[in-house]
Amino acid sequence: MPETAYWVDGERAAALPLPDRGLFYGDGLFETLLVVSGRPLLQGLHWQRLQRGMARLGFPEHSLPALEAQLLAACEGSAAEGWHRLRLTVTRGGGEPGYAPAEPAQLRCIISCQPLARDPRIPLPAAELEVAELSWGSQPALAGIKHLNRLEQVLAAREARERGCDDLVVLGQGGDVISTTSANLFLVRDRWLLTPTLEQAGIAGTRRQLILEELGEACGLQAEPVALGPADLAAADELFLCNAVIGLRAVSRLAERRWDDWPVTRQLQAAYAERLDR
Amino acid sequence: MPETAYWVDGERAAALPLPDRGLFYGDGLFETLLVVSGRPLLQGLHWQRLQRGMARLGFPEHSLPALEAQLLAACEGSAAEGWHRLRLTVTRGGGEPGYAPAEPAQLRCIISCQPLARDPRIPLPAAELEVAELSWGSQPALAGIKHLNRLEQVLAAREARERGCDDLVVLGQGGDVISTTSANLFLVRDRWLLTPTLEQAGIAGTRRQLILEELGEACGLQAEPVALGPADLAAADELFLCNAVIGLRAVSRLAERRWDDWPVTRQLQAAYAERLDR
Repeated sequence: MPETAYWVDGERAAALPLPDRGLFYGDGLFETLLVVSGRPLLQGLHWQRLQRGMARLGFPEHSLPALEAQLLAACEGSAAEGWHRLRLTVTRGGGEPGYAPAEPAQLRCIISCQPLARDPRIPLPAAELEVAELSWGSQPALAGIKHLNRLEQVLAAREARERGCDDLVVLGQGGDVISTTSANLFLVRDRWLLTPTLEQAGIAGTRRQLILEELGEACGLQAEPVALGPADLAAADELFLCNAVIGLRAVSRLAERRWDDWPVTRQLQAAYAERLDR
Repeated sequence: MPETAYWVDGERAAALPLPDRGLFYGDGLFETLLVVSGRPLLQGLHWQRLQRGMARLGFPEHSLPALEAQLLAACEGSAAEGWHRLRLTVTRGGGEPGYAPAEPAQLRCIISCQPLARDPRIPLPAAELEVAELSWGSQPALAGIKHLNRLEQVLAAREARERGCDDLVVLGQGGDVISTTSANLFLVRDRWLLTPTLEQAGIAGTRRQLILEELGEACGLQAEPVALGPADLAAADELFLCNAVIGLRAVSRLAERRWDDWPVTRQLQAAYAERLDR
């Protein structure tokens, strides 16, 4: 098992001081970044999402430079060689019991960092998916941001393991497609790249953002978020997943529908690998 | 500020070992109990809900006796005199990163205990409420249980403070009444006591349960969970809130509608105070 290093508020630590609103209420946010040779990758995209989340929860934005300093110190201190995954967790700190937080909040930053078992530029084998029985809850006030309330994802991951498939497509309460248990989802149709809108549920992934803003166009594709149903997935030329840890991963099966050729996904994977090297 | 005592897995501790899935994903449950002279009150109702939550999340039930032993030791050790509030938090412990938990889980128990500032048998002054702009998300898989994903409650509590009222009535995504930011809600109509069903959202409170199973009948009332809309609240003879910390609290205003006499609520409050003394 690879060794994990932890920091709390910039100091190496093995434990989180109590009380903490992140533990008690899930009152916080996180980002999972790739780090290579001490350098965090696509930090700008992670920082944009973190900032959006902080605004949504009412966290003071003046804390961002201190968070960045802690991130960079951890990268230099523990991830100086090879590939690492680093999780930055920001909570609303301690305080008296009760849902109402003290204002202004004294944020707390917890960083964990461990070596990556694989090179994230090399795509994983294509994934076999089913449609989950669980649906994501609808909550526009929290949709899109990467907050600490992830029990739904835990339940979905347990369902995926029970059903013995690589991942599950999870729908919203209205039957629309949102994501898989832990990745964003894209479909390819002609020269279009389509991914679900995330207004009711889901996390707006950094790799989803990168594809929408940069990789799609670089590969000559029109990339857009739209409302998608299960029938749209079945009718797609190709399907792939993406997140920071897996990168871009082709889909070989969704329920009865199979794919065995992914020319567009392969092109995007190559563009992504190149982007990580920059 | 009253001194708070903390225990982790039965030992006095000031910090939570890292990693912890309660912090990272909100993968856990909690109960807030009243303790008087070292004795936890209505423990059976708290235990029923905890057990329901553990079953829902796939926590091993054989951990329950150990959790109870830790609860009782904390009560004896720190809450031996006077009134205390005790929070029992159960998380799915540590493990490798990723939403999928190790099976079987090694649960972790965090207890915090502090003196109560007031005698919970004495009702608070009647509350002034507004209807929240935030609505609770819909997630039948998590409704009713008291899990650690409470960011919605944090947002709702911030809205209540901004709006300067005692509490807010929060609706579900479908416009039905669910609860307030931190309490269950009952209305009195003739000799009926009605409280919202909690199939899509909300927490099934121990005091709600006590009223449905015991106090309503003891006061000669028919008590039932039913679907309720905002118009039902406005048409009620009386309205009151309940949770473990506040007990039963009358409502004097909801938006434009006012109440200034609560004969049924007063009767129930007396029955509740007597029940706490037993």
